[in-house]
Amino acid sequence: MNDGSMFPPQCPVPLDTDDTIELAHGGGGMKTRRLIEGLFRPAFAHAPDDFTHDGAVFEAGGGPLAFTTDSYVVRPLFFPGGDIGTLAVNGTVNDLAMCGAEALCLSVGLVLEEGFAVGQLRRVVDSLRQAADAAGVRVVTGDTKVVERGKGDGLYIAMAGVGRVIASSRIAPQQVRPGDAIVLSGDIGRHGMAIMAAREGLGFETAIESDCAPLIDPVRALLAEGVEVHCLRDLTRGGLATALIEIAEAGQVSMSLDQGAIHVIEPVRGACEILGLDPFYVANEGCFVAIVPQRDAARAVAVLCRFSGHAALIGRVEAAEGAAIVQMDTIGGMRMLDMLSGEQLPRIC
Amino acid sequence: MNDGSMFPPQCPVPLDTDDTIELAHGGGGMKTRRLIEGLFRPAFAHAPDDFTHDGAVFEAGGGPLAFTTDSYVVRPLFFPGGDIGTLAVNGTVNDLAMCGAEALCLSVGLVLEEGFAVGQLRRVVDSLRQAADAAGVRVVTGDTKVVERGKGDGLYIAMAGVGRVIASSRIAPQQVRPGDAIVLSGDIGRHGMAIMAAREGLGFETAIESDCAPLIDPVRALLAEGVEVHCLRDLTRGGLATALIEIAEAGQVSMSLDQGAIHVIEPVRGACEILGLDPFYVANEGCFVAIVPQRDAARAVAVLCRFSGHAALIGRVEAAEGAAIVQMDTIGGMRMLDMLSGEQLPRIC
Repeated sequence: MNDGSMFPPQCPVPLDTDDTIELAHGGGGMKTRRLIEGLFRPAFAHAPDDFTHDGAVFEAGGGPLAFTTDSYVVRPLFFPGGDIGTLAVNGTVNDLAMCGAEALCLSVGLVLEEGFAVGQLRRVVDSLRQAADAAGVRVVTGDTKVVERGKGDGLYIAMAGVGRVIASSRIAPQQVRPGDAIVLSGDIGRHGMAIMAAREGLGFETAIESDCAPLIDPVRALLAEGVEVHCLRDLTRGGLATALIEIAEAGQVSMSLDQGAIHVIEPVRGACEILGLDPFYVANEGCFVAIVPQRDAARAVAVLCRFSGHAALIGRVEAAEGAAIVQMDTIGGMRMLDMLSGEQLPRIC
Repeated sequence: MNDGSMFPPQCPVPLDTDDTIELAHGGGGMKTRRLIEGLFRPAFAHAPDDFTHDGAVFEAGGGPLAFTTDSYVVRPLFFPGGDIGTLAVNGTVNDLAMCGAEALCLSVGLVLEEGFAVGQLRRVVDSLRQAADAAGVRVVTGDTKVVERGKGDGLYIAMAGVGRVIASSRIAPQQVRPGDAIVLSGDIGRHGMAIMAAREGLGFETAIESDCAPLIDPVRALLAEGVEVHCLRDLTRGGLATALIEIAEAGQVSMSLDQGAIHVIEPVRGACEILGLDPFYVANEGCFVAIVPQRDAARAVAVLCRFSGHAALIGRVEAAEGAAIVQMDTIGGMRMLDMLSGEQLPRIC
């Protein structure tokens, strides 16, 4: 990260100390990047190379471990397909899985607003526990803080996780090579649209459920089948497009995608049209990309098809000629994918 | 924790699902206990024995590791002796130190309120980094969320930490034995009173600074000198009294304290009198108790005196006859210490 490669030409202008925080600073797009590059990276200059990723790998004497944290501020707390508790567990387990690691233990920090109903807290804690059981991980420590009425929004959850790295080679954007295949684990856009539908009270003909789920099983299967995994990334805030742009920039490569290979279920497509949203930028909580050598592409797709009928080879890594770009073949021609500059869907996780 | 020993006679009545959250649920007293025993412990029934403590020890193949988390919601963000950034780092490092562990790496999660000044964020991040440098630990991963104006209070920090256990024997309330010595590392009450003074705009003759500091050096020194450490506990929310009551109940012992041996600096004593607060219940962020065999007591005090002139032997562990009680010899007679039932100082950490 001190070699300058992390400051690609598209790097945003420096953060201005006179600025104030906007919702878009938490959206995963350009403004989030500006906070990271302008403030956090210089401050934590000893941080790992891939500071834009959501987990870090460290050594503690018994083989590499992975460490991650996320705060969850999703609204509403309960939505079709999950709630803030399942989201916290799966989000944390998935950040570890994207480091090639199995979760060993979780911590949970609660920031409660005065007046929050204990019955709702109980529901969240129960589903958090069930999600941890389903993912085979234990909550071992925690903390509770309470803030005054009007200083919170019911409940925020901060979760951290420690995992054991099971991948035998490094998984990181820097491992990605021109010629590699880009494999997508399933259809995209369900989590973000489930949240939007719940929030806006939209009654679509077919209810959209979040795809919120732990991703360690498909990752384990890829590794067990001997697929040489170069990079993994779950498609949370900013969706597929943002994840691929980040990998391309960090790995100094370009990417060509085939839009026709990327599945969006019909209710999600319809909801996106109504709301004027682009499914390529909508968040997922149970979907990821794996970047693998071309020779392993078919095997990777076959493995991921055990978990989702919509797993597919969606594109190819190219050499970057100057800037790292991500472009997509569409029916109408070629489309360039850019980082979002504003906030598309606030508080979806 | 399933043997019933963690549900002493003083155990609070079960949590009512019709309740709503009050500030006191975050205060570290009876209501916090009720949340833990009534909701979190049953949900996370596989959690370690000492679930009321702030860290957990787990195995990952290379010797025991410790894991902890805390959310920080302190008001004001900046106070004499520190800010929310130094507090987060030292609080996390200290939770690990109390497990007999050296911090290896930290994660930082930020929940920012829309409109928060980037200049203030920069100040906090800078002091957070300096505190991490001072404690010899690295921030390796993080996350930022932004909530709408009126749904937060400027900045909350969620921090988690992983540490390597350097103690060769188990450090836990269950290791405490009748006859053990109770050693206090310094004077008490400074953090809580510094916060209260800053919040209330009180201009005391002598400014009170928080004692916020990392505690790993004195813990390392105790272990290096061969002191057999049975239990360690930093004196945060709820102060000295709450920490000792929790240890006594978890270890099923009683304790006798000598009030005259417990140092409270004059400005803290004066401020407590003005505000009607009891220094034994006021939070500290750089002070702890060590419970050690009687034969190691003098050595432990000598070691801790290298770090504070107010380190002292303050009491003795007794066999519990029925209930676990903590009593204190005072000038006027004997005083029994109880868990606080309400909230003394909201949002001091």
